Amino acid sequence: MTLRIALAQFDFPVGAVRANAERIAMMIAEARDEHGADIVMFPELALCGYPPEDLLMRPGFLRDCALAIEDVAKAATGGIVAVVGWPEAAGSIVYNAASVLRDGRVEHTYRKRELPNYAVFDERRYFDVDPDREDCVFEVKGVPVGLIICEDLWFAEPIASTVRNGAQLVLVPNASPFERDKHAQRDALLAQRTRETGAAIAYLNVVGGQDALVFDGASVVANGDGSVHPAAAAFTDQWLVVDYDSEERSFLPVQWVDDGDESRDALAWRAIVRGIQDYCRKNGFTKTWLGLSGGIDSSIVLALAVDALGADNVTAVRLPSRYTAELSNDLADEQCRALGVKLLTVPIEKPFQGYLDALSQAFEGKAVDVTEENLQSRTRGAILMALANKLGGLLLTTGNKSEYAVGYATIYGDMCGGYAPIKDLYKTEVFSLSRWRNTVGGAPVIPPAVISRPPTAELRENQKDEDSLPPYDVLDAILLRHVDQEQSRDEIVHAGFDAATVDRVLKLVRISEWKRHQAAPGPKVSRRAFGRERRYPITNGYIA
Amino acid sequence: MTLRIALAQFDFPVGAVRANAERIAMMIAEARDEHGADIVMFPELALCGYPPEDLLMRPGFLRDCALAIEDVAKAATGGIVAVVGWPEAAGSIVYNAASVLRDGRVEHTYRKRELPNYAVFDERRYFDVDPDREDCVFEVKGVPVGLIICEDLWFAEPIASTVRNGAQLVLVPNASPFERDKHAQRDALLAQRTRETGAAIAYLNVVGGQDALVFDGASVVANGDGSVHPAAAAFTDQWLVVDYDSEERSFLPVQWVDDGDESRDALAWRAIVRGIQDYCRKNGFTKTWLGLSGGIDSSIVLALAVDALGADNVTAVRLPSRYTAELSNDLADEQCRALGVKLLTVPIEKPFQGYLDALSQAFEGKAVDVTEENLQSRTRGAILMALANKLGGLLLTTGNKSEYAVGYATIYGDMCGGYAPIKDLYKTEVFSLSRWRNTVGGAPVIPPAVISRPPTAELRENQKDEDSLPPYDVLDAILLRHVDQEQSRDEIVHAGFDAATVDRVLKLVRISEWKRHQAAPGPKVSRRAFGRERRYPITNGYIA
Repeated sequence: MTLRIALAQFDFPVGAVRANAERIAMMIAEARDEHGADIVMFPELALCGYPPEDLLMRPGFLRDCALAIEDVAKAATGGIVAVVGWPEAAGSIVYNAASVLRDGRVEHTYRKRELPNYAVFDERRYFDVDPDREDCVFEVKGVPVGLIICEDLWFAEPIASTVRNGAQLVLVPNASPFERDKHAQRDALLAQRTRETGAAIAYLNVVGGQDALVFDGASVVANGDGSVHPAAAAFTDQWLVVDYDSEERSFLPVQWVDDGDESRDALAWRAIVRGIQDYCRKNGFTKTWLGLSGGIDSSIVLALAVDALGADNVTAVRLPSRYTAELSNDLADEQCRALGVKLLTVPIEKPFQGYLDALSQAFEGKAVDVTEENLQSRTRGAILMALANKLGGLLLTTGNKSEYAVGYATIYGDMCGGYAPIKDLYKTEVFSLSRWRNTVGGAPVIPPAVISRPPTAELRENQKDEDSLPPYDVLDAILLRHVDQEQSRDEIVHAGFDAATVDRVLKLVRISEWKRHQAAPGPKVSRRAFGRERRYPITNGYIA
Repeated sequence: MTLRIALAQFDFPVGAVRANAERIAMMIAEARDEHGADIVMFPELALCGYPPEDLLMRPGFLRDCALAIEDVAKAATGGIVAVVGWPEAAGSIVYNAASVLRDGRVEHTYRKRELPNYAVFDERRYFDVDPDREDCVFEVKGVPVGLIICEDLWFAEPIASTVRNGAQLVLVPNASPFERDKHAQRDALLAQRTRETGAAIAYLNVVGGQDALVFDGASVVANGDGSVHPAAAAFTDQWLVVDYDSEERSFLPVQWVDDGDESRDALAWRAIVRGIQDYCRKNGFTKTWLGLSGGIDSSIVLALAVDALGADNVTAVRLPSRYTAELSNDLADEQCRALGVKLLTVPIEKPFQGYLDALSQAFEGKAVDVTEENLQSRTRGAILMALANKLGGLLLTTGNKSEYAVGYATIYGDMCGGYAPIKDLYKTEVFSLSRWRNTVGGAPVIPPAVISRPPTAELRENQKDEDSLPPYDVLDAILLRHVDQEQSRDEIVHAGFDAATVDRVLKLVRISEWKRHQAAPGPKVSRRAFGRERRYPITNGYIA
């Protein structure tokens, strides 16, 4: 027997229960009528989007989901079986569930057993585990099909017990956010589970950006022999239609995905592009703004924004001061002309001087210090916000992970904005990604001189980042160990870094926590992103 | 037999493992030598402070805690038994533990069974439950004493099983943050548990502010007959020394706390005052700044800051514009003179005009709108930050919960600052708390005219808050239902509110989420505070 399975690798926005329900109902019909599918599968919690966070605390939200799943079930007629993820409430108990819909009704409901509650996940805040832990096995054209959800697959027992109960093919709807190097880990897991159980697996991941997360799709199928076939493209909305042969117990060969460049850099770039696109689309922005300094951070954000939204939907703003080099102005101009992006120039001198005048009495007798630098940055932030307020659009923030880590950014200044595309890229990664992007066909999108010049904030005469910070290769190596790998001060020093430098960097990380708490979200790319994945106290007496 | 128990109701700062260990060791000696105690009890996780958040992800942090508990144990000699809370790591497993220290060593370690993972709590992110769920009962002078931790008490079984195993007196170390009306709930629980089990309970709560939480102490003891005795003051660092009579199975009468005014308003006021004090002290600030507009929000924050830090440590700044009424300037002056607070005046006209000039070309042909209002607010924010940067100190943010809810605050403007004292008070609560404070002895600290004048942002001619928002009593009633009580749009309308008003308010709440994500922390006072207690997606398609 051959089963045709349609995997709906699409974006189901968080909270949009009614719209998602209508779309899922349409897609069920489409899978049946246009793709001839016997089974159509939707991602984890597709009905309400993932992660719905504290919307799950609203009784009305849960009631709306319960009504919507009944509506969706009505579309599952004419022989098709649909698997749809949704939050199932039973009194004050809520399950992360997926229901099997057939003949216009909810036939079975599977309840997720393993609830991730680490890193970016908070599922134990919202969901319960059913103590009965019932397996879900249902027949489609005589073939026993099993169902588990996402994290369940990372444990041996849920799929093993589903297979013991007869399943020979197991469906796994997921909501697994992108992070670098995760695909290889996931494919190894799929190979292991299929070998352990002999079952085939159809693994569907949702796609799309949601605040600080970008779900990458890249759905796969795996056969009982441990072979894993990347079958859908990353970061792409698409149907993945596969045929499963129940005699061979394997999927028939399909046009496996050939997604072009799937290097680490390519995937990170596409994650960020998708993040920008979806943040804008779902929050009602068509236009974006950013300050373009002639430095690499704003330059790469401009290139990303143009890739995401098109040149017509991005406006760059030069905000020169008395300390801005001619080269900076020229490079901003060069990039905008190369990309076809509109460039405004708003000198900050008048409001900046206005501040100095207004504060001259209060500051009498005090030396010039970082205060005046912050004022320049805040003047720029206010001008950019004013442009976005008056003319419409989203202000993109251009800070990188190194900057967020050590606080080398002005809160209420260059940290202004609603979305921070490169928030999870260290400065050295910004460089390497910029170089990579310039190799991808056509003329360079980031002027080479932007990449080669020494980084500077241009907030005083002849300032260079390396006057205040260690060289970025050293800084980023220390940060990677401390932030991403949780190494202690002593471990980092023992690895060969200068003790005084390590102490200085770790202190900067500690005292910048209050700024990060007030930072805009940006797409998670690394294994440990600032924000919901690294929850530190602001008030913190731990030094190590 | 009489047991003397010293409950250490003190503040143990988060992360300060070594300092906390040294202090706990000294306090053990003090309890033994000065108070003649047989048992000394410290709060939940006293060794590392509560909540340590993702510090618990650092292996080095857990190692430091393991070393520190051994050091602390060395102080528990000469007959005293100490109970100390700490995070106990066993490989990758971590327990929220409390150890019984005696004769210089760790004698028993109890592992918390019930891990709160709701509201502000994330304990299942960090801690595991030991599947063996062993009770902890130890003898002190022949009296069997039990030990459970905080959330355990909210379930019947942990204390019941501890008592079945022989305990007649149960110690409960806690880290329970203040919220209005929680004391009554807790006392009812204590009465219930003592009646259920017949055991006496010594309930110790930590005290002190930690970012958005304020722990209120207010430790109590309860006898087996269900009588509960509030024994320590709220928001106060103190020893609570009680004698337990094992024949009578009850505590001997002590000087039960008479804490003066314990009204709802008094407790909220003291929670905020303690929050300001501890945020400043633990983060190294002695001085604070705030913008004083002549309106009620900044006026109450000034009064709170003076109560918290003394008039000498607060500087108020008037930031008049072309739209500022004479009355506003006069009221700011009147309040500062009454409180003995230094008042600076920095007119915003020059930088504001500088912005208008700088943007005149970009804004050509565009009508004046909220952009210019935001620019005024951002000019004020930048000036206040510049004063704090140059002259040192913490900028206090003066927004209230109504404002945060509907976005009636300018991000990077009046939302600037490191700590937001009235963030969790609705505007109507700001009024009632202001009136209450003025009744507490002496001259009014908030000028009565500030309380009686209609609220205005003074960002354009003759502006009143009620031009843009429903009257505050209506607004706050809707917000309370929607935000604090999770009522749906329909429920609120059915309760009698105008549908169009409800829709408008709920939409404002939804589209302001991005601002709240970039807001400073402020002390939780209500049952549902914005921030870690209400985690909403920014990108959110749910309308109800």
